[in-house]
Amino acid sequence: MGQAGCKGLYQSLFDYKTEKYVIAKNKKVGLLYRLLQVSILTYLVVWVFLVKKCYQDTDTSLQSSIITKVKGVTFTNTSELGERLWDVADYVIPPQGENVFFVITNLVVTPNQRQETCAESASVPDALCYEDSDCPPGEPVAAGNGVRTGRCLREGSAQKGTCEIFAWCPVETRSRPTKPLLGEAKDFTVYIKNFIRFPKFNFSKTNVLDTTDRTFLKSCKFSPENPYCPIFRLGSVVSWTGSNFQEIAVQGGVIGIQIEWDCDLDKAPSECYPRYYFNRLDNRFSGNSISSGYNFRFAKYYRDAAGVEFRTLFKAYGIRFDVMVNGKAGKFNIIPTIINVGSGVALMGVVRPPGERKGECGAAAEPADRGGVARDVG
Amino acid sequence: MGQAGCKGLYQSLFDYKTEKYVIAKNKKVGLLYRLLQVSILTYLVVWVFLVKKCYQDTDTSLQSSIITKVKGVTFTNTSELGERLWDVADYVIPPQGENVFFVITNLVVTPNQRQETCAESASVPDALCYEDSDCPPGEPVAAGNGVRTGRCLREGSAQKGTCEIFAWCPVETRSRPTKPLLGEAKDFTVYIKNFIRFPKFNFSKTNVLDTTDRTFLKSCKFSPENPYCPIFRLGSVVSWTGSNFQEIAVQGGVIGIQIEWDCDLDKAPSECYPRYYFNRLDNRFSGNSISSGYNFRFAKYYRDAAGVEFRTLFKAYGIRFDVMVNGKAGKFNIIPTIINVGSGVALMGVVRPPGERKGECGAAAEPADRGGVARDVG
Amino acid sequence: MGQAGCKGLYQSLFDYKTEKYVIAKNKKVGLLYRLLQVSILTYLVVWVFLVKKCYQDTDTSLQSSIITKVKGVTFTNTSELGERLWDVADYVIPPQGENVFFVITNLVVTPNQRQETCAESASVPDALCYEDSDCPPGEPVAAGNGVRTGRCLREGSAQKGTCEIFAWCPVETRSRPTKPLLGEAKDFTVYIKNFIRFPKFNFSKTNVLDTTDRTFLKSCKFSPENPYCPIFRLGSVVSWTGSNFQEIAVQGGVIGIQIEWDCDLDKAPSECYPRYYFNRLDNRFSGNSISSGYNFRFAKYYRDAAGVEFRTLFKAYGIRFDVMVNGKAGKFNIIPTIINVGSGVALMGVVRPPGERKGECGAAAEPADRGGVARDVG
Repeated sequence: MGQAGCKGLYQSLFDYKTEKYVIAKNKKVGLLYRLLQVSILTYLVVWVFLVKKCYQDTDTSLQSSIITKVKGVTFTNTSELGERLWDVADYVIPPQGENVFFVITNLVVTPNQRQETCAESASVPDALCYEDSDCPPGEPVAAGNGVRTGRCLREGSAQKGTCEIFAWCPVETRSRPTKPLLGEAKDFTVYIKNFIRFPKFNFSKTNVLDTTDRTFLKSCKFSPENPYCPIFRLGSVVSWTGSNFQEIAVQGGVIGIQIEWDCDLDKAPSECYPRYYFNRLDNRFSGNSISSGYNFRFAKYYRDAAGVEFRTLFKAYGIRFDVMVNGKAGKFNIIPTIINVGSGVALMGVVRPPGERKGECGAAAEPADRGGVARDVG
Repeated sequence: MGQAGCKGLYQSLFDYKTEKYVIAKNKKVGLLYRLLQVSILTYLVVWVFLVKKCYQDTDTSLQSSIITKVKGVTFTNTSELGERLWDVADYVIPPQGENVFFVITNLVVTPNQRQETCAESASVPDALCYEDSDCPPGEPVAAGNGVRTGRCLREGSAQKGTCEIFAWCPVETRSRPTKPLLGEAKDFTVYIKNFIRFPKFNFSKTNVLDTTDRTFLKSCKFSPENPYCPIFRLGSVVSWTGSNFQEIAVQGGVIGIQIEWDCDLDKAPSECYPRYYFNRLDNRFSGNSISSGYNFRFAKYYRDAAGVEFRTLFKAYGIRFDVMVNGKAGKFNIIPTIINVGSGVALMGVVRPPGERKGECGAAAEPADRGGVARDVG
Repeated sequence: MGQAGCKGLYQSLFDYKTEKYVIAKNKKVGLLYRLLQVSILTYLVVWVFLVKKCYQDTDTSLQSSIITKVKGVTFTNTSELGERLWDVADYVIPPQGENVFFVITNLVVTPNQRQETCAESASVPDALCYEDSDCPPGEPVAAGNGVRTGRCLREGSAQKGTCEIFAWCPVETRSRPTKPLLGEAKDFTVYIKNFIRFPKFNFSKTNVLDTTDRTFLKSCKFSPENPYCPIFRLGSVVSWTGSNFQEIAVQGGVIGIQIEWDCDLDKAPSECYPRYYFNRLDNRFSGNSISSGYNFRFAKYYRDAAGVEFRTLFKAYGIRFDVMVNGKAGKFNIIPTIINVGSGVALMGVVRPPGERKGECGAAAEPADRGGVARDVG
């Protein structure tokens, strides 16, 4: 585009270049062309506008808070603990009602442990010994409970024994009860209070019915007919995940409770409601026992009259609930509407369908084959 | 495109097909065309490059760690507890200084509970009885504290009474104090230490001033003038959310503290600083009391000289703080720059403005109307 | 496009408009054109299909659960605590085996604190006094341990003293041991059980070998050769982050363990395996001591025979581990394949390379310069 002098440059500055077209007066080609346009229009109206709601501005940065509260009591009568009533302060860990909480359903209790010497549990392979030299003093027992003192303890005339250890004695020896101690936990209820806010639209909502009737939450239970009563029976939650409560109560497990808010703020606020999904989050399907279940140990510490510390060790099996919240909201906004209508009009003109765009609206055009090529013979 | 023989095929292999153009020497059309180009250029320079910073590579996978530490003591004098001083180990739950922590502001204390029988609280509807047969033994009281023993306890000659239960006795009967026990918590401070790293750029930063002056953190307070002193007075945090401290202290609540890092790493590291946002995350606006506030129960367990367990039950009201961190960083990178400059140059040529792309840079072109159509009359 | 009557309108409805082309029989231009096409084809096959796997549908909404379990015991002999064995229930906080857990490595113990009066620690600047009037009664000591009683306690004939306070007495005075009390924690192990599920493909997997060999987890250790044994020695984890265990054990720190699942479900399930990344998440590089390390205070509460409460205060230094899980899965799906093949074919035709699209497949075309412009001279 060599320019000859200033004038030429100035003139060419306002040149407008456009492509030459051939109008093909062919009914078949024309019909095909119109069909293509109609299908694009359908795509735009149905997919982009009705399904994807691309006329809306969306907010995915949900602010959420979860408060959980478990209710229920149960009574047990065992040889270690005697008659005992369990209430929420006893069986929920941690107590503060966050989005992750654990309900004890089964227990191995080892009471009155003190810092002293005793025989290591025979189930620890590393603690087996034949003579004192098998127990080097000061060395901890691998996967065991204490530090070797140097003696090998053999019962009677047995050849094989276990090393004496310095530990919290007596060590835990009982195995997991096959019947869950707190099997009645299936009738406990959990109240999950979820408050959400979409900051972009300054829209807040809670999953609890906005009522002044104080007895509502005392009597209601969650059901599809009663979605604003987020009080769940633990046994029902477990069964909704397809698991068996007695089985999960014996060996423990993890259950995920998902709350999903998918809100169209162009509709009434009552149309923005939570949906609940329940999943088992540990591998129940695995037949092997080495990696299934959920348990942990904790202790309560006491002092006797002489000021010496002792503790009760608990190996707790139970169900951990993880409450997770997802959500997004959409509201009519003129800018995405203009962009998507404009993009649609343009598409109609050039017959180039936009590609499928995941989770994002309109905009990008994919170059499609431009139909037949008209050769210029002039 | 039928090919005639090998030679024809070979020749046509190097054919180059280009569109025919018409140069319209029309000042009005040309002016419009140039105006369009100028507006695209402006869009590119201002929006794509200056606002969206599309010449940068971005990293949104922030690594973050939060350490929180509350400071402050307060003194109370109540009938149940006597004179008592509260320090951090007493009123912060859990103690380990994670991103979610709870500060007790109000308490209902039920001391010296033991496993025995007593009358159920009269405020539990399910426990009301007229005679012993209303209290089937072994059945737990719904939303109550224990398991029925089978007796109906009536005071004096009263017709109505409550079932006797086996429970942690005496049961909790007091109601929430209307004046917060630890109202002085508004003067407690929390130190929020936040360390972030953008792995893609290997850039690390903390929200604390990098000083060797050991007294800095002992004396400073957070303020807009002092953004590198992340020590917040609880009362100020509550007031920044628009809430009243005394009200939240009585019935409890949840407050979100958001830390946002929006870093342009082409500038000095000091330009990459945190911004703090404070929100109330439970539904304070709801007037009904059934779903407002935040409280939970926990217990401290003791053993008496005879080895019998007893406990003190606490119903704690207070403020839960959720500290959340978001962030992204951008740094000049030649690849997005080339792509966006290239895309811009191309746009200039064909006058097709790119659509608005949310959170993503340039690249996609939207087919816009191609101006006037020049009919071929040859 | 003025229409003359219904017939004209009807006819023009099926008009098809196409651009006129010039076939340039020029080897150089043609070669360039073919080269461009070959490079686009290469880009499509190598980048879009082989590297980005754009023929796959992807799922990034990973469901994950983490269960952690620390093992190990250690023995200490100190003046405050005497001979003591530490096991998991003693040194892991919180005990419930969630994705964030803390291992105590160093301790400052203040035993037998009671609610009474004593002298404030001399290291608190606000508590220094010359006479009683420096200690206004009832006022808490800033950054101190209690509430002033009104007396100034001076030792012997010293001019300067500290205010008497009502607090948990005696107050904590010892400083951090320079040798970590639980330095042997480097030999503790942590078993991290991670279960994941990709809901879109209903694909579940765990990071533990699916074996029925009960001894496998008792003997194995994680190593690149043994990726399905997620048992990590704490000392190794710390060294993988580039930190020194003794240094982090003395003053505490935060370590992030990232588990990444990047699964191609078109391959065998065994090809979908976790990768582990270890990072130090607190600012170790900062030389100043005011913002490094990690510690917190907690207490164990007891009652003496008279029912008076006393406690042991612990200032715990240690390592917090944050386990984080990321992942995505892809599986062949006909829809993205069609879209991307179609988009590729179209690209081949018009020689317009698609721009780099971050984290998203194909689809959008960027208008590139259209090569030389053929002027119409007809």
